[in-house]
Amino acid sequence: MSLEILPTFDDVLAAARRIDGHAHRTPVMRSSTIERDLGVELFFKCENFQRIGAFKFRGAFNALSRFTAAQRQAGVIAYSSGNHAQAIALAARLLEIPATIVMPADAPEGKMAATRGYGAKIVTYDRYSEDRDAIARELAEATGGTVIPPYNHPDIVAGQGTAAKELFEEVGALDALFVPTGGGGLLSGSALSAMALSPGCKVYGVEPEAGNDAQQSLEQGRIVRIETPRTIADGAQTQALGAITFEIIRKLSAGIVTASDRELVDCMDFFASRMKIIVEPTGCLGLAGARKTAPRLAGARIGIIVSGGNVDPGTFCNLLAAYSR
Amino acid sequence: MSLEILPTFDDVLAAARRIDGHAHRTPVMRSSTIERDLGVELFFKCENFQRIGAFKFRGAFNALSRFTAAQRQAGVIAYSSGNHAQAIALAARLLEIPATIVMPADAPEGKMAATRGYGAKIVTYDRYSEDRDAIARELAEATGGTVIPPYNHPDIVAGQGTAAKELFEEVGALDALFVPTGGGGLLSGSALSAMALSPGCKVYGVEPEAGNDAQQSLEQGRIVRIETPRTIADGAQTQALGAITFEIIRKLSAGIVTASDRELVDCMDFFASRMKIIVEPTGCLGLAGARKTAPRLAGARIGIIVSGGNVDPGTFCNLLAAYSR
Repeated sequence: MSLEILPTFDDVLAAARRIDGHAHRTPVMRSSTIERDLGVELFFKCENFQRIGAFKFRGAFNALSRFTAAQRQAGVIAYSSGNHAQAIALAARLLEIPATIVMPADAPEGKMAATRGYGAKIVTYDRYSEDRDAIARELAEATGGTVIPPYNHPDIVAGQGTAAKELFEEVGALDALFVPTGGGGLLSGSALSAMALSPGCKVYGVEPEAGNDAQQSLEQGRIVRIETPRTIADGAQTQALGAITFEIIRKLSAGIVTASDRELVDCMDFFASRMKIIVEPTGCLGLAGARKTAPRLAGARIGIIVSGGNVDPGTFCNLLAAYSR
Repeated sequence: MSLEILPTFDDVLAAARRIDGHAHRTPVMRSSTIERDLGVELFFKCENFQRIGAFKFRGAFNALSRFTAAQRQAGVIAYSSGNHAQAIALAARLLEIPATIVMPADAPEGKMAATRGYGAKIVTYDRYSEDRDAIARELAEATGGTVIPPYNHPDIVAGQGTAAKELFEEVGALDALFVPTGGGGLLSGSALSAMALSPGCKVYGVEPEAGNDAQQSLEQGRIVRIETPRTIADGAQTQALGAITFEIIRKLSAGIVTASDRELVDCMDFFASRMKIIVEPTGCLGLAGARKTAPRLAGARIGIIVSGGNVDPGTFCNLLAAYSR
């Protein structure tokens, strides 16, 4: 891939200026209990308190902010059953851009209602017989709208990098940073910020054990595609990194570690009982990875990106019950 | 009661100086969803993020900071099965004062372990046959230690008032403030801060419907004592206001509203699903009261004290399940 289209830290800085006043500057939290237990310092960047409940708003707003007048008029098209859909829908409403979201017909009614509540139009498809990419492309051709993919896009990567940028600005240099990893947008953006603001910091991606495509991709030096993994980390059920995210990750990240569903639920329980915050399973990946790696990092200053909090209380309780003992 | 022993806002200011750097300055959070629904502005002062998970640390640290050298040496004695016990235990550890906590023998092991973990000595009693006040008094006589009660003490009231002080400093004047009310320490301290920093602000206490002793006390102009109420708001299962808290509340508060257990669980669900925070049932009283009163307060700027987050995930899930539908 040509290096020119890869985003750089300058793009993260430009994204930070665009989202300023629109995205929340989320808090950095700490917990003395777990720091004592692990023998490290931990800084949690709490994107569960971001608008729409996840970091995805950063990239979405950055991408839509760059639309030309013609693009704004023709609208944005996105496909997602998760946080990216709501992020695009909200960013589009704020920027007065028409949005169409392609969602599976059997997506949870709550997520459809939230997306519709932001004013987006929803187009449903049958996830067993229809191809959402093809539907999005057809819509784009028919309407002239612009498709914004969930991670493999320079403006998305640059926007997601602003979370780590804020973390380094607030707490200074770190020895390691653990980042939830699905398609790699958050990880590659975080790595750009770390390289510029804390050059010695090792940036680890953390992905579900059941779907370690990023780990395999780094080992093999090419993008490895897997079957949709079965994991409770629904935000990381991606099949492959993108061309852009893979290039950045293989250059800048220190490696990929994995976490089991049980480890994610343990972290979810910890966040609720000790830190009093709700974190969705995907958002627990960073802490789960840090817990495993901490024995090798005694005394280190470690950042954790808590990527989102969109798990409804019913699901939260079912997961805790399913994994208790 | 003689007015001289009642704390004033000057005592709140002095308490704020003493706890500075020891208590957390907790965040003020907002939620656009509920503001739209209720047609008001809402500012949540999140004491669930306070040390030990509740506002109680403020008063405890303030009270122990004022001990003389002789008092420090003889130690502190407290009786509580809840947040006050842990608050005294932690404050005592930080100030290097020996602490003895009188707890019922059947208190949850988790709470005992947490209290012991802070270095306090635990003395147990049989809650059906023994009187904890008498045990605390005997301990005090035997050891020369100082008993610090959970709410009816000028230093406790002054310390608890620092939460509302921080809220007004951060968000400016408010039209109304809703405060969880058990023994009235938090309510009376909050009222002192409101009178000084936002004189037009109506300060409401919110207590469980099942135990409306404060409401009855204001109506009758005397302290009304009730049976220990059956409510999930375990931090507000008090039988009566204290002499100090009653005097301040009847002078300064705008009234007491009540909330049912079901309303508290609804708020707990809202906090988890929309704001991504864990709030214990007692900590939901403020929002529950504001929700009922909001129709009369269209457009108002309303503060809510979220008093604590000490509900373990198992109990949290059981409560949600018990009240669903």
